[in-house]
Amino acid sequence: MSQIRGFASDNNSGVHPEILEAMANVNKGHAVGYGDDEVTQRTILKFKEIFGEATDVYFAYNGTGANVIAIQALASPYHAVICPETAHINVDECGAPEKHSGCKLLPVKTEDGKLSVEGIKTYMHGIGFEHHSQPKIISITQATELGTLYSIDEIKEIADYAHNNDMYLHMDGARISNAVAALGCSFKEMTVDAGVDVLSFGGTKNGLMYGEAVIFFGKNTEAVKYIRKQTAQLHSKMRYTAAQFEALLSNDLWKRNAAHANTMAKKLADKLKDIPQVKITQKVESNGVFAIVPSQIIEPLQQEFFFYMWDPEKSEVRWMTSFDTQEEDINTFVQLIKEKLSVLV
Amino acid sequence: MSQIRGFASDNNSGVHPEILEAMANVNKGHAVGYGDDEVTQRTILKFKEIFGEATDVYFAYNGTGANVIAIQALASPYHAVICPETAHINVDECGAPEKHSGCKLLPVKTEDGKLSVEGIKTYMHGIGFEHHSQPKIISITQATELGTLYSIDEIKEIADYAHNNDMYLHMDGARISNAVAALGCSFKEMTVDAGVDVLSFGGTKNGLMYGEAVIFFGKNTEAVKYIRKQTAQLHSKMRYTAAQFEALLSNDLWKRNAAHANTMAKKLADKLKDIPQVKITQKVESNGVFAIVPSQIIEPLQQEFFFYMWDPEKSEVRWMTSFDTQEEDINTFVQLIKEKLSVLV
Amino acid sequence: MSQIRGFASDNNSGVHPEILEAMANVNKGHAVGYGDDEVTQRTILKFKEIFGEATDVYFAYNGTGANVIAIQALASPYHAVICPETAHINVDECGAPEKHSGCKLLPVKTEDGKLSVEGIKTYMHGIGFEHHSQPKIISITQATELGTLYSIDEIKEIADYAHNNDMYLHMDGARISNAVAALGCSFKEMTVDAGVDVLSFGGTKNGLMYGEAVIFFGKNTEAVKYIRKQTAQLHSKMRYTAAQFEALLSNDLWKRNAAHANTMAKKLADKLKDIPQVKITQKVESNGVFAIVPSQIIEPLQQEFFFYMWDPEKSEVRWMTSFDTQEEDINTFVQLIKEKLSVLV
Amino acid sequence: MSQIRGFASDNNSGVHPEILEAMANVNKGHAVGYGDDEVTQRTILKFKEIFGEATDVYFAYNGTGANVIAIQALASPYHAVICPETAHINVDECGAPEKHSGCKLLPVKTEDGKLSVEGIKTYMHGIGFEHHSQPKIISITQATELGTLYSIDEIKEIADYAHNNDMYLHMDGARISNAVAALGCSFKEMTVDAGVDVLSFGGTKNGLMYGEAVIFFGKNTEAVKYIRKQTAQLHSKMRYTAAQFEALLSNDLWKRNAAHANTMAKKLADKLKDIPQVKITQKVESNGVFAIVPSQIIEPLQQEFFFYMWDPEKSEVRWMTSFDTQEEDINTFVQLIKEKLSVLV
Repeated sequence: MSQIRGFASDNNSGVHPEILEAMANVNKGHAVGYGDDEVTQRTILKFKEIFGEATDVYFAYNGTGANVIAIQALASPYHAVICPETAHINVDECGAPEKHSGCKLLPVKTEDGKLSVEGIKTYMHGIGFEHHSQPKIISITQATELGTLYSIDEIKEIADYAHNNDMYLHMDGARISNAVAALGCSFKEMTVDAGVDVLSFGGTKNGLMYGEAVIFFGKNTEAVKYIRKQTAQLHSKMRYTAAQFEALLSNDLWKRNAAHANTMAKKLADKLKDIPQVKITQKVESNGVFAIVPSQIIEPLQQEFFFYMWDPEKSEVRWMTSFDTQEEDINTFVQLIKEKLSVLV
Repeated sequence: MSQIRGFASDNNSGVHPEILEAMANVNKGHAVGYGDDEVTQRTILKFKEIFGEATDVYFAYNGTGANVIAIQALASPYHAVICPETAHINVDECGAPEKHSGCKLLPVKTEDGKLSVEGIKTYMHGIGFEHHSQPKIISITQATELGTLYSIDEIKEIADYAHNNDMYLHMDGARISNAVAALGCSFKEMTVDAGVDVLSFGGTKNGLMYGEAVIFFGKNTEAVKYIRKQTAQLHSKMRYTAAQFEALLSNDLWKRNAAHANTMAKKLADKLKDIPQVKITQKVESNGVFAIVPSQIIEPLQQEFFFYMWDPEKSEVRWMTSFDTQEEDINTFVQLIKEKLSVLV
Repeated sequence: MSQIRGFASDNNSGVHPEILEAMANVNKGHAVGYGDDEVTQRTILKFKEIFGEATDVYFAYNGTGANVIAIQALASPYHAVICPETAHINVDECGAPEKHSGCKLLPVKTEDGKLSVEGIKTYMHGIGFEHHSQPKIISITQATELGTLYSIDEIKEIADYAHNNDMYLHMDGARISNAVAALGCSFKEMTVDAGVDVLSFGGTKNGLMYGEAVIFFGKNTEAVKYIRKQTAQLHSKMRYTAAQFEALLSNDLWKRNAAHANTMAKKLADKLKDIPQVKITQKVESNGVFAIVPSQIIEPLQQEFFFYMWDPEKSEVRWMTSFDTQEEDINTFVQLIKEKLSVLV
Repeated sequence: MSQIRGFASDNNSGVHPEILEAMANVNKGHAVGYGDDEVTQRTILKFKEIFGEATDVYFAYNGTGANVIAIQALASPYHAVICPETAHINVDECGAPEKHSGCKLLPVKTEDGKLSVEGIKTYMHGIGFEHHSQPKIISITQATELGTLYSIDEIKEIADYAHNNDMYLHMDGARISNAVAALGCSFKEMTVDAGVDVLSFGGTKNGLMYGEAVIFFGKNTEAVKYIRKQTAQLHSKMRYTAAQFEALLSNDLWKRNAAHANTMAKKLADKLKDIPQVKITQKVESNGVFAIVPSQIIEPLQQEFFFYMWDPEKSEVRWMTSFDTQEEDINTFVQLIKEKLSVLV
């Protein structure tokens, strides 16, 4: 496959040059390992500036790692995690949440990847009944795996419900920057201020090489350093993880990258609206476009621009944009769709 | 702490410039994630050239991750892993092996970090007895955590014993390059040819930013891709992991780095021999020096060159050299030791 | 609570006198522990007579224990278990399957507690895709948790689908005797002959004090003895477990008990048909009756005959009969329902 | 094997008649399952009378089940359990503690199966260091697996050390009645008053059919009911478990049984003292006798009285007495030993 830019995933993109440069910049001399270095400490302070003083930050290698650290920190094996059926923790982590935490996942069917209090309530029975896994964490993804967004009020409503029922709210923020850029709010407003208890803060899908951060708000996190280590998510040469986040949070790089990807998705969606055989199936609120397309053109398209089938039964596909998606990529791609369609008849 | 080069750990060093450069070189366009890219496929072939065709390579983020993938792949929860008491898996992974695999670790006391068949045999009873965890993996570290080396014959003897008793031999090769450079053999001779079944091939301690490889020799590894994913060790932007290994295995970078570190350890040891109050406690066969020093000078020394206490009761410390250790670092350090000692009366 | 016979669960009943007597009969002298005694060996042979030579029997303490032994024996942590949403393993074992096996459970919504191939297929995607837990076991309950039955042909269809897709079929037979008695077939016809790979054979709900058996058909069960021990399901004084099963399988006690319970459920259902305010919601095919009743009478009824609410939103309750249910219990209960209803208006 | 009484294990004995009778006595009508019945509630009160009000009792099926419930309740997966190398949890539970809790076990070599503060201290380093499993539970067995006893003062010393270091003291009391009978104290003096935090109270080895109790002293045990259920240790027909303990704690049955077994062990030891070829290796303080005997007579002896080899290298065997051991069993056995020895030349 040649070095084109496709629409398979925002993790098919490369590393943003400012990130690479930041990594090169810290490549001097020795530094104490495992996070006791200056760069890491500085970056943690940066996160505290953004999210508030009562914020504890733990860097991890990847999203699955971050999510399972969060779950282990706030739940015991007899607990359950309520999440949308489409949640990454439910369908894309090969059972890592169950394996690491011992918890049961309770999936709620949704149309748009967004959990509602009503959906959560379908599992809120048998509380105190020892035969049932006890719901302890509600997990939402922002932006969702379907490219949709929770409003801040929707998050607050879920957070309130969680807290009123002695549960925690976890946010899988693999694409949190896309969400914040789209909502035009601050990170803080959309998370800790809205009642989020623990956040998986994504980096990889927004221009980092690797690296996510698990961020706890006002929790007792004494155990987390051990959990991270035991989960094999503790980087020895931590400064290189931290330097990436430092750069991402500097000069609004996170926002530039995310807003660009969002804009590209909107452009792609706009152009697709003119094609009657393509039906967009989800609101395009962040950097993903979901669409039903004639099944005969899917494979021919994939051979030139790789992307994933979302729902084979519906002939629904997923197209993700990224910080490095170019307008010409979109034009070429839409042109290609039109060509493949024209041959059909 | 200023940007000095200390002797705390070979993971306190930075990233070798050729590695960084290789990472920058692959930072072009999009690439399929999770290892289906050209760089990864190319690097896997490079490993096969080194270790033979019947070699399966799985990249992981870190050493703990690599080790627990290896154990999960070859053992079931009712099995046990026999290892030296000083093994990284036993004392430095916060119980990750037990947590991930469910297995029991059976630690053997040793003087020099090296397992012997005699030591292994102390646990070879109750075979077939359902009340006992059944030994299934023998794990050795090469170079050991004490800087010592197994000869190829010693490895073969242990491998034969393992195979004659229906067990596997795992080698934790966090410092495998140091060992191969020191023994003057090939990777293959010291591993698959000697009977090793699975190898954790270390990168981070030899100049990589992050990254280890779990390498299986002639095994059915169908399950390993799932195990790696579930263990949260699968990198989405895999090309950056692979590119590091490709560079490490090119132009003998692995050997240049490792041999240099080994030489620096030898030089440090040589200079210490002149100091009567410092007693070297282990053979200096790779890149570590273990020594008993007067306890009063340890803290003062650590304030200028950070390193770890090994055994507080014996006043024994560990000094590690690295690919970037300079002769002047050693001179300065030895000079400092002498100064601190001279003040003692 | 006085010593009445209610309809809460078939495990609220006592122990059948022939079972108690059998336990007393083996209470002589010493016997080797953990199953190497004569009674256990004799009972295992009895199971082999019933299910065929290629049958391996492992006694466990309870149903949850039996089910998690079965799952651990046939699946790895990255596998998934497809089951009806109402399955005991999914809702009544406090997450034990996930905790013990590491597997994900994939629940299928059903109307009647019965899995269909169509329902199973909704999860049969992403095979070979490392991000998804791989379906490996299909689990059905016979009789189901809703008192319904699979026909032998329905079991065969699911078994064929399982085997054609490299999966195993597990049957949770907590009430297997009720099913066999109702279908009028043999144990063998409904299990191994129909393609079942592993069976949790229930005893406790059919008159035993405690005890279930995990039965494997033509499998390599080398690992099972260790799994049972590690799962804390190995009874030291095994003869008392075995003696219960020996009695259950002698003189058709299993059938007498089960058929009686089934008959009592049918009688209860028949009498309820005359009451317009009570709506039976599931076919009464074994020993359970599910019904929607006016919510106001539920608590008053429970104070005299304890039973469980099944679905509070629908005001649906569950009434189970047992080997010791008497016709007068049913008459009294139905009379009581009528009285409570008459007061309503 | 005929119905003789051997010296293999106190779990090879049968069930005491008073226990069987108690089980038969509760076999009337229906009772709510899972412990909400009168018998269970009454028995729990009996335990509270013995151990004090701040006592929480959870019945389990067997000793392994009880021990792993205790560990899961008081430790997290990144914790470690310090115990003697000979502890049942370390060598006789097929790795169940590691598998269920995720914790590491830290075994201390001892001469007599008794942990000392000095031995514990060898593991008390790296506290707060995330790379090391953090010691959280000290586990002692009373009476020990070697038949020896801790004095109350010795228990207190260990408890004080545990509490001063933010750890808990677990007592594996599989043979607690033998210990209390031998020390001539009360259950309370030897456990909660001495600082024990959680106790596995053994029943099976002292005349029960099955059943152990996990007893917490002044702890928050909110989570334990879920842990027990998820560990597959919750008996549905709980009244039969409870009834056994009620009988055991009534009319000093526990003491009669235990004291008798202890006396029998002493008698056996006394008679063995006259035989020069038999060397008793441990103090005979409860109901076990450990001895080195000429290896040639071991198998011949085992064919008539089954017992276990303890240490094949030393030709050391274990002989356990039980509540039902008769003086004639001992006379016959000692006579047999003499005969076998006489043939030796």
